[in-house]
Amino acid sequence: MTTQQAPGSRQRFFRSRWVAPPAGVEELDPDRLAPGFRAAGTACGLKGGGETDVGLVVCDSDDLRSALLLTANAAAAAPVRVCREECDPGAIRAAVVNSGNANAATGERGYADALAMRDAAADALGIPPRSVAVAETGVIGVPLRIDDVVRGVAATSRRLSERGGGELARAIMTTDRGPKACTARAGGVTVSAQAKGAGMIEPGFATMLCFVQTDAEVPEPETALRGAVAGSFERITVDGQLSTNDTVLLQATGAAGAPLPAGLLEAVLLQLALAVVADGEGATRVGRAHVRGAATSEEAERVARAIANSPLVKTALYGRDANWGRIAQAAGMALAGERLAELGADAIDADELAGALQEAELAIVLGRGDAGAYVYFSDLTPEYIRINAEYTT
Amino acid sequence: MTTQQAPGSRQRFFRSRWVAPPAGVEELDPDRLAPGFRAAGTACGLKGGGETDVGLVVCDSDDLRSALLLTANAAAAAPVRVCREECDPGAIRAAVVNSGNANAATGERGYADALAMRDAAADALGIPPRSVAVAETGVIGVPLRIDDVVRGVAATSRRLSERGGGELARAIMTTDRGPKACTARAGGVTVSAQAKGAGMIEPGFATMLCFVQTDAEVPEPETALRGAVAGSFERITVDGQLSTNDTVLLQATGAAGAPLPAGLLEAVLLQLALAVVADGEGATRVGRAHVRGAATSEEAERVARAIANSPLVKTALYGRDANWGRIAQAAGMALAGERLAELGADAIDADELAGALQEAELAIVLGRGDAGAYVYFSDLTPEYIRINAEYTT
Repeated sequence: MTTQQAPGSRQRFFRSRWVAPPAGVEELDPDRLAPGFRAAGTACGLKGGGETDVGLVVCDSDDLRSALLLTANAAAAAPVRVCREECDPGAIRAAVVNSGNANAATGERGYADALAMRDAAADALGIPPRSVAVAETGVIGVPLRIDDVVRGVAATSRRLSERGGGELARAIMTTDRGPKACTARAGGVTVSAQAKGAGMIEPGFATMLCFVQTDAEVPEPETALRGAVAGSFERITVDGQLSTNDTVLLQATGAAGAPLPAGLLEAVLLQLALAVVADGEGATRVGRAHVRGAATSEEAERVARAIANSPLVKTALYGRDANWGRIAQAAGMALAGERLAELGADAIDADELAGALQEAELAIVLGRGDAGAYVYFSDLTPEYIRINAEYTT
Repeated sequence: MTTQQAPGSRQRFFRSRWVAPPAGVEELDPDRLAPGFRAAGTACGLKGGGETDVGLVVCDSDDLRSALLLTANAAAAAPVRVCREECDPGAIRAAVVNSGNANAATGERGYADALAMRDAAADALGIPPRSVAVAETGVIGVPLRIDDVVRGVAATSRRLSERGGGELARAIMTTDRGPKACTARAGGVTVSAQAKGAGMIEPGFATMLCFVQTDAEVPEPETALRGAVAGSFERITVDGQLSTNDTVLLQATGAAGAPLPAGLLEAVLLQLALAVVADGEGATRVGRAHVRGAATSEEAERVARAIANSPLVKTALYGRDANWGRIAQAAGMALAGERLAELGADAIDADELAGALQEAELAIVLGRGDAGAYVYFSDLTPEYIRINAEYTT
């Protein structure tokens, strides 16, 4: 299932053995956006050190379809509430985003700031305000320096480029160790996507930001996006924390006159999701909890998630310790109140926990039925503690 | 609410500002058991280094009542299944316990070993097998060296003493930094208790081992024990992990001819529970998540637990960072799907996160109703990672 990469290639995607891209997929320079889109990123000073922290992505045409998925966190950030209340989710021409400040738990002022940021982007781009989505990421509970952001939006709008994918990906980074972007072509269509996410990662659906552009015909973008997210961002966890700001946007022009090849969107999103996990705060390895023999899909997912979020399993992944008993314990915890047939070593494959592989699969067979599930997760390391004990308000 | 201790006193209990013992409570030497009970601990080699790893506690009379609470983990260990299937929970004369091996996920052999251990204790004490409870703690998935344990049980039975509380507490330690025992007297009755627990701590009810003896009259021991556990061991978390082996045993002779003073049992168990949290793997501080203004008690507890188990809050407790935004995020996650009124800084008191206090209270007011809840938790530190990455099968 692995697409081989030439050594030294800058193309980094579809490397995971867990990703199955459609046949004939070709990877392009991740700076390059799908035809009909432009993006850019600039620094407005929120992050300091000259790092870019304001981004824009815009579709040149208003003949497009879009879908917007937002966090389920009840304490949703101001930009999420603006997207819910002040945008046309099916007709999003552009997204404006900043990093360095999540604009969450910032009250009425935060809401007004998110609106002002959205309006500044609409104004700079000359498009209706309701066609602009707004996203923010960074610290919670700190007022946004909106004047700096508005200036940054104007500056960013002057840099928009068909090769701005990497700039956008860098502009949305927080504790990410590197930008996450992917451009792929198959079946005559192109998909480009940029994502961020390193901590506060647990799917309600997504727990990070991701912008996806394509020239494919996508008649039902929300259905397509929900399906692909269900197999990717909803299957990952770094620390079990559902963010206040998660946003995934899909924009599709249809200009290529061809549909999305089966599996392309999910492969792109799964590879980005795995990049988020691999870049999890302090992470050194990625695990996949693979549950089979569950009574229902829901039960399989609950068990997989319990394994993936267990700090005992996550530290065993870090310590390269094939401690299968901790997998049994986590599974039993997820099924608390039930009686489970004895989960001995033969029901659990934890060998890869102890191995040298960067990607370790942990498998468990519950013997209760035919349902299964995967959850991808990062290890828990001293560096996670260091980052989160020091990253401060 | 704090009982002052003389400096240098070896009496360590009722020091927390969160524990309210009944008036007139007197602390005794924790080695000393309630009248009518004897205990001991010896080394049989499971832990190595000559550390004690087999313990016994026995009531001299068969005129007693008892209650036994066991883990809800579906992958319950062999000793838990033996207690469920082969004991009279209301008439437990003695408990036999080992540390160094949990005898969990050990299949039919593990069950036979737990039965053999139980029978060895009954034989050595000359009491019916069904009146002996068995408990084990340590690594999961490793066969028990039952011959060593049986020899250890016989040796331990020859050391039983009215002053064996400390020995028992030491014999059940795993990664605990010290023994946890308490003996207190009030209203003419004595309660002694010994507990262990440092990792894999999250209440299903208890998530550790605890043995409690009293000469009070306790006509409904299960009701009394469930009530006290609900306010103590069910309110703590170290790492959100429900153990396979949790066991709490209450034995009451009634010989004092007086009932338990209100609050005594819960105060003893809460102080032991706090000792478990303070001794959490790698822990340096204890936090209390205090939720008010929830719509229901269940909701309050769910939010408190989400805060207490958030690795972001736990690292902030370690890093002494008053990062109230993470409390808002965790609360919002626990209420995912609902819409919450903006949780600004005025709804959250996180000052003690950043302070010098060993016990830090984090308060949040949800504005949804009148229900409240507490959950006690430890911080998440590099030492937790070190312990769990190295503690191996």
